[in-house]
Amino acid sequence: MRMYDIIEKKRDGGVLSEAELYFFARGAADGSIPDYQLSALLMAIYLKGMNAEETVILTKAMAESGDTVDLSAVDGITVDKHSTGGVGDKTTLIVAPVAAACGVKVAKMSGRGLGHTGGTVDKLESIPGFKTALSREEFFAAVNKNGLAVIGQSGNLCPADKKLYALRDVTATIGNLSLIASSIMSKKLAAGSECIVLDVKTGSGAFMRSRRDAYALAQAMVSIGNTAGRKTRAILTDMDVPLGKAIGNTLEVIEAVEILEGRGDPALYEVCMTLAANMLELAGKGSPEQCRALAESSIRNGSALEKLALMTASQGGDRSYIDNPSKFPRAKHSFEIKAERPGFVGALDALACGTACVLLGAGRVKKEDIIDPLAGIILEKKPSDCVKSGDVLAVLYASSPALFEDARALVSGAFSITDEPFSPASPIIGTVG
Amino acid sequence: MRMYDIIEKKRDGGVLSEAELYFFARGAADGSIPDYQLSALLMAIYLKGMNAEETVILTKAMAESGDTVDLSAVDGITVDKHSTGGVGDKTTLIVAPVAAACGVKVAKMSGRGLGHTGGTVDKLESIPGFKTALSREEFFAAVNKNGLAVIGQSGNLCPADKKLYALRDVTATIGNLSLIASSIMSKKLAAGSECIVLDVKTGSGAFMRSRRDAYALAQAMVSIGNTAGRKTRAILTDMDVPLGKAIGNTLEVIEAVEILEGRGDPALYEVCMTLAANMLELAGKGSPEQCRALAESSIRNGSALEKLALMTASQGGDRSYIDNPSKFPRAKHSFEIKAERPGFVGALDALACGTACVLLGAGRVKKEDIIDPLAGIILEKKPSDCVKSGDVLAVLYASSPALFEDARALVSGAFSITDEPFSPASPIIGTVG
Repeated sequence: MRMYDIIEKKRDGGVLSEAELYFFARGAADGSIPDYQLSALLMAIYLKGMNAEETVILTKAMAESGDTVDLSAVDGITVDKHSTGGVGDKTTLIVAPVAAACGVKVAKMSGRGLGHTGGTVDKLESIPGFKTALSREEFFAAVNKNGLAVIGQSGNLCPADKKLYALRDVTATIGNLSLIASSIMSKKLAAGSECIVLDVKTGSGAFMRSRRDAYALAQAMVSIGNTAGRKTRAILTDMDVPLGKAIGNTLEVIEAVEILEGRGDPALYEVCMTLAANMLELAGKGSPEQCRALAESSIRNGSALEKLALMTASQGGDRSYIDNPSKFPRAKHSFEIKAERPGFVGALDALACGTACVLLGAGRVKKEDIIDPLAGIILEKKPSDCVKSGDVLAVLYASSPALFEDARALVSGAFSITDEPFSPASPIIGTVG
Repeated sequence: MRMYDIIEKKRDGGVLSEAELYFFARGAADGSIPDYQLSALLMAIYLKGMNAEETVILTKAMAESGDTVDLSAVDGITVDKHSTGGVGDKTTLIVAPVAAACGVKVAKMSGRGLGHTGGTVDKLESIPGFKTALSREEFFAAVNKNGLAVIGQSGNLCPADKKLYALRDVTATIGNLSLIASSIMSKKLAAGSECIVLDVKTGSGAFMRSRRDAYALAQAMVSIGNTAGRKTRAILTDMDVPLGKAIGNTLEVIEAVEILEGRGDPALYEVCMTLAANMLELAGKGSPEQCRALAESSIRNGSALEKLALMTASQGGDRSYIDNPSKFPRAKHSFEIKAERPGFVGALDALACGTACVLLGAGRVKKEDIIDPLAGIILEKKPSDCVKSGDVLAVLYASSPALFEDARALVSGAFSITDEPFSPASPIIGTVG
């Protein structure tokens, strides 16, 4: 088999065979196919597309290109959750404990933040002592003992995807639905869980800006998951507005604890309960109504919060921070953004807030950047809230006042004030699968 | 300027600007753009195309990416001739002397053969002593003295094209009209002649199999040449059948001398006279009829043959071989292909003959291969010729009888015998420009 012939076939709009797609993925992983041929094929795929079958096969081929996690050592049904990335998205810190408290196993690998979107690993590492690098044995033991563990991607997981994603990133071939879906799902398949709930974000702060694209991505991913033998469902959620009130790593951990304490932002609570209920339903815990009730009761009875504390302790972290979040250190400097006129908060641009957070030191421009766990933004007002002139809209946190310079204009500009009151839309847009 | 943005623009069907195309060509030449980005853009260009203006600009950018030949040191009007490559194509050995004998200057760079198509440099080097590597000064002096010189590509000519062609060759992006036209024409522009006659071959042994594609390529190249300020014309000629009777380096030199002596294959003579007359016409030597008469008279009065002998001597070769071609050595072994039934020769497949020649040792599969200058084929019969059973159709020449094994079946299969007599079609298909 020759890579040349595979490129030529796709260039002319042909359908690649299983053998050809495995040859491609293996060659990407082991370096036997040169970059210039990989990128030529990626551009041909971008422009000519892949059908559903090709997409599933490429996903499996990438999943099998390196290590795969065998979760058979975990007792019970394993459920994974994946977000396509957003601003203020701390749902994993909430839904993983809720699901574990309700009796399913969450053995989850998470990523770090990049650009305006945050990452769960960064948020967890803002808890003093928390380790996101566990051995395979420690990981399984923690899941069996507590029902959950969240670690960083370890080992040689999906090397084909890693290689191809890096090439797509520099050859303008990221934005193809089949390639996006197969990249995400290859890691989910390799990570081993039986059930997968996908949180597909859409809006200004999301990778998929339009709902139409988000639906298409959700459908593609659900189709891949189900074809590959995993129970898969996608929930489309809003990312025009940051999720919750906190953006920034320590700030988001504190907000997650608030939600697990039964307080906090209603939109964030609704997204978490929807995701958790769907995780429980896929795991066979009952009807949608029963699962929703189960999830909510884990908040009310404190069992979900206890799961987060147990996970923290089990992964080397200091659970006293979870038990008493006021212990968390605060950033040295803060800056208040105030309303210039009275009215109602209309739009609150997620992308602008996420970008401002990077400027404050909470996020990365490049993978190698060091982040400040204390930096971030607290949104004191959210869409539909009534404000008076001079009311604090948001508070920025950073290690140096100089960092407020560019960020303040971005956050200020992220808010629009309208004259007419309105009811906020539900953050849940739809379900696929 | 970022290569990423250029790729993205072409991926989405945009028109690249002059600055972007120069950035691309320069980056290909100096290695500042990595191969994977070059090949991604090449695939995007392949699938989305370039308009006429982009094609001209890319051609100029590639021509200017390295050394360019300044022919101002040559007295008189310079005329170049280029063939898109064929089987038995020894026209340069004939038309360059004819044009020089008629008073125009031919300062020509030629290539080596690859695959089933031959190259002028290989043919010239089969003349004992002939050097195709001259210094710039020797080259100009030879052209000024004799009216012609033919050398191999020297110096750092079109490094952008060299790089991009090598990538296209391994990423299935050769067959795009704009890229083919700009690759050929960039070298013609860099080579410096004021007038350019293109011999665009079409048929089984040509790069462009269909006449439609050949016309399109001819139009694209003529448009580039004229826009870039060179008087350019393309002649479409037949390559379903090998040109002339000889294929193989020494054999083709001998046949070229025959034509210059006023003997030999009528189709080859017609192609050469057409090309030469067009070269003279572009150089302002008169009307089409006057130029044709001028070219033919250079054959009749022996002045063209004398030019070939002068060029040979001037480039270190032994002109006694041109004066007396029977001096050329012959291959050690020969093999006759005979007609199995009587009739008239119908088709005579050029590709099969060219491929057989490679098997006999006359051509290269890879650039590094060593060729046997004596190997080749003499076609004793051509289409429309009447044959009896047992008549010799072709004679194969090689250094070892083992080489006849595969070649004989190919050559035998290249001939078809029909029952009805017919007149051979003209090898001249059309003119563009």
